[in-house]
Amino acid sequence: MAAVKVYGLPLSTCTARVLTCLIEKGVDYELIPIDLSVGAHKQPAFFAKQPFGQVPVLEDGDVTLFESRAIGSYVSYKYKDQGTDLFRLGNINETALVGVWAEVESQQYNPPISTIVYELVIKGMYGMTTDQAVVDAQSEKLGNVLDVYEARLTENKYLAGNFYSLADQNHIPYTFFLMKTPLASLINSRPHVKAWWEDISSRPYFQKVRANANV
Amino acid sequence: MAAVKVYGLPLSTCTARVLTCLIEKGVDYELIPIDLSVGAHKQPAFFAKQPFGQVPVLEDGDVTLFESRAIGSYVSYKYKDQGTDLFRLGNINETALVGVWAEVESQQYNPPISTIVYELVIKGMYGMTTDQAVVDAQSEKLGNVLDVYEARLTENKYLAGNFYSLADQNHIPYTFFLMKTPLASLINSRPHVKAWWEDISSRPYFQKVRANANV
Repeated sequence: MAAVKVYGLPLSTCTARVLTCLIEKGVDYELIPIDLSVGAHKQPAFFAKQPFGQVPVLEDGDVTLFESRAIGSYVSYKYKDQGTDLFRLGNINETALVGVWAEVESQQYNPPISTIVYELVIKGMYGMTTDQAVVDAQSEKLGNVLDVYEARLTENKYLAGNFYSLADQNHIPYTFFLMKTPLASLINSRPHVKAWWEDISSRPYFQKVRANANV
Repeated sequence: MAAVKVYGLPLSTCTARVLTCLIEKGVDYELIPIDLSVGAHKQPAFFAKQPFGQVPVLEDGDVTLFESRAIGSYVSYKYKDQGTDLFRLGNINETALVGVWAEVESQQYNPPISTIVYELVIKGMYGMTTDQAVVDAQSEKLGNVLDVYEARLTENKYLAGNFYSLADQNHIPYTFFLMKTPLASLINSRPHVKAWWEDISSRPYFQKVRANANV
């Protein structure tokens, strides 16, 4: 039985963000499915682990954690001596740059892309209608962010420098869904962003998580 | 001349987030004002430091950083042996919980409160009209987040545990402005949240930053 337990669903972008991290670090884990369709995340037993009623939750020994990006940082730090060096903990300037570009994902990239994926993918799953005006506005915002990425990735192979890190990895879950929509053009029309996506989406963990997710 | 340079404005919430951290850690810094009213943040010299054209930027020796939350983590780590222990770096479980509740600020608290402050405070500065429907919707969201905080702060004096940390501190800049509006009631109507705010807003650094900001 694995010491690390993840409560969530691979289809959930935030659960996927945690799983990519555990796989990249070579940490054995047990995935405990939370059936959102029957409201399992809104039951008292789950609220006791996660007060906002959201997946995922990670349990590691006597610590219970939530918020996928915080879990990723924890896993990178706790298991720093195994797997991929996702946070460059031996070099404070590189660690700082991983932190900066991970925050860029959180603050600049995630708001528009999560809204677009909600409108174009999630709403469709529930038979709701896409609000095209919202998609257009957020598409413009995401394009502006990707213009900065294109310049950055012209100078460096990855966002924080010439090394793969948590900063790149945190982009994977939502970008995966974006690439299933016509707005994949936002990635594909920028050559260095396109090459970066092809690189980070071909890592072994990505195949493993997505193969399990059946999407 | 201080080794650490901060480009920004104390009135900017994100600049304030960095300054509170530097003061709490006892790091000497030089503040280099960026006059947003004349678009100094949209000039090539500034874009070279910050590709999104936003304040603040921190320079420390040969590293240039942006994104206020990432800077706070860097300062907590780089200067871990001085000032307040903002990230509990000697205890991995406590560090993890600081990370979780710092992410809660970033993902759950910041979206509604920053929208409310924009509508009620910033728009007023520019003679624009508040959209009350937006305020009402975001006020409900913020109230739900604060219900979780009230429960958490009933069990612990601070968000990450019984110690002041970066997780609490990152809430200060926007909450400061919220408290100038009628929606201060969202804080004041929850006794443990109110006590927490009175505690964290009375720390010496807070007075120093806000005294300098003339607001």
